[in-house]
Amino acid sequence: MNSPHLRKGSRQPQPAPKGKLRLYSNRFCPYSQRVMLVLDSKKIAYDVVNINLHSKPDWYYEKSPYGKVPAIELESGDVLYESLIIADYLDEKYRSNHLQSVDPLQKAKDRLLIEDFNRMVHTMTNFLSSIGRFSLEDDEVIVNGLTTFERELFHRGTPFFGGSKPGMLDLMIWPWCERAEILKLFGNANLLKKDKYRRLLEWCRRMSEEPSVKKSFMESDIHIKYLQSYRAGRPDYDMILDSSE
Amino acid sequence: MNSPHLRKGSRQPQPAPKGKLRLYSNRFCPYSQRVMLVLDSKKIAYDVVNINLHSKPDWYYEKSPYGKVPAIELESGDVLYESLIIADYLDEKYRSNHLQSVDPLQKAKDRLLIEDFNRMVHTMTNFLSSIGRFSLEDDEVIVNGLTTFERELFHRGTPFFGGSKPGMLDLMIWPWCERAEILKLFGNANLLKKDKYRRLLEWCRRMSEEPSVKKSFMESDIHIKYLQSYRAGRPDYDMILDSSE
Repeated sequence: MNSPHLRKGSRQPQPAPKGKLRLYSNRFCPYSQRVMLVLDSKKIAYDVVNINLHSKPDWYYEKSPYGKVPAIELESGDVLYESLIIADYLDEKYRSNHLQSVDPLQKAKDRLLIEDFNRMVHTMTNFLSSIGRFSLEDDEVIVNGLTTFERELFHRGTPFFGGSKPGMLDLMIWPWCERAEILKLFGNANLLKKDKYRRLLEWCRRMSEEPSVKKSFMESDIHIKYLQSYRAGRPDYDMILDSSE
Repeated sequence: MNSPHLRKGSRQPQPAPKGKLRLYSNRFCPYSQRVMLVLDSKKIAYDVVNINLHSKPDWYYEKSPYGKVPAIELESGDVLYESLIIADYLDEKYRSNHLQSVDPLQKAKDRLLIEDFNRMVHTMTNFLSSIGRFSLEDDEVIVNGLTTFERELFHRGTPFFGGSKPGMLDLMIWPWCERAEILKLFGNANLLKKDKYRRLLEWCRRMSEEPSVKKSFMESDIHIKYLQSYRAGRPDYDMILDSSE
């Protein structure tokens, strides 16, 4: 997953080895990480082709119509994109370790919570891609969002949103939680008060210890270093590379 | 479904009669129509409470956290919102007349097409809420979108996207197709060339003849009259009322 990011002019790679899915990804893209988390949680075999989002290879638009990552390519040649659609597809197609609730109402509620979380993500992304600080309104969106999730963990009374193990909701929100330290550094330092979000912070610790989460996990200092390169207009996607490359 | 739209100060209605779902809706909201189409296609019993989106009753925010329509209220008191999430919930919960494909890949492809369609919808909505005309870029989004759907019908070779009867994709895109005449009137008259989108126009005719589509159907002149009132800043939601009210 830490292979060099292919850019304009890079040769199109060979198809994935037989029996493996191909994931088109970017090492620092949280939406791509969502799909990796699902693949790793369900132990689905896949290889990764990393795409430089700053300079995409022309051939990539024939794979993913809007040039977006993540995208997965099936052995049939079909390509799916949009992280949530891919995640649901994988969960329905591969029955091992079911991630969605089997109760339609609980599944719908989890999807609404993912949408709620996306509202926070938009605020966070707008902030991260600028050099500004959080506005009071941004703070409010984040605080309301975090409070919703803290309460939700309290009501469910389980170690994960999915119960005794991480489910779809846990995985779909994790990539931004992994990056939460960035908020402390660049945003409002009081935002992530330890006593206010006790359950959520415990959940974060538990998530970071899950084997399937560890596979794509990156430490905060790497996320911060990447963000600095991004803000400087030269995103350093290849900051970490497999030593074999 | 044509009851008066409740506004700020309107009394909160009684819960839905036993055995019925409650749909919070707006007669001219295409997202609400999506949910009605699913309810009517699956013959699920429901009653409708129409909400004036220009002046929402305070109590409505306790039902739908962002004050959005559509929302459905279950007998348990749970409320779901977001048209696509409601539609999937209803399809999974009520097994009669299954609307989603049972093949996870086909289901994922249909969801991607709904997302594609949403891109067109954003363009259309931006245009409808202004008094401008379409830009060349808008035209391109619409033409590309329509071409995708025309080709899709050709590839599938079935009367509906869902096969021999309307499926989820058919229902989720229909509300904007019902309003397509507006584009001809206010937009580029050449946009909807009959010969270029022959299959799509035949599909439109077939859809408009479906009993479950007829239930919420409104003629173009009503949509146009509503749009004119909306653009004048005084949306006339109660333009059509049940004679019994």
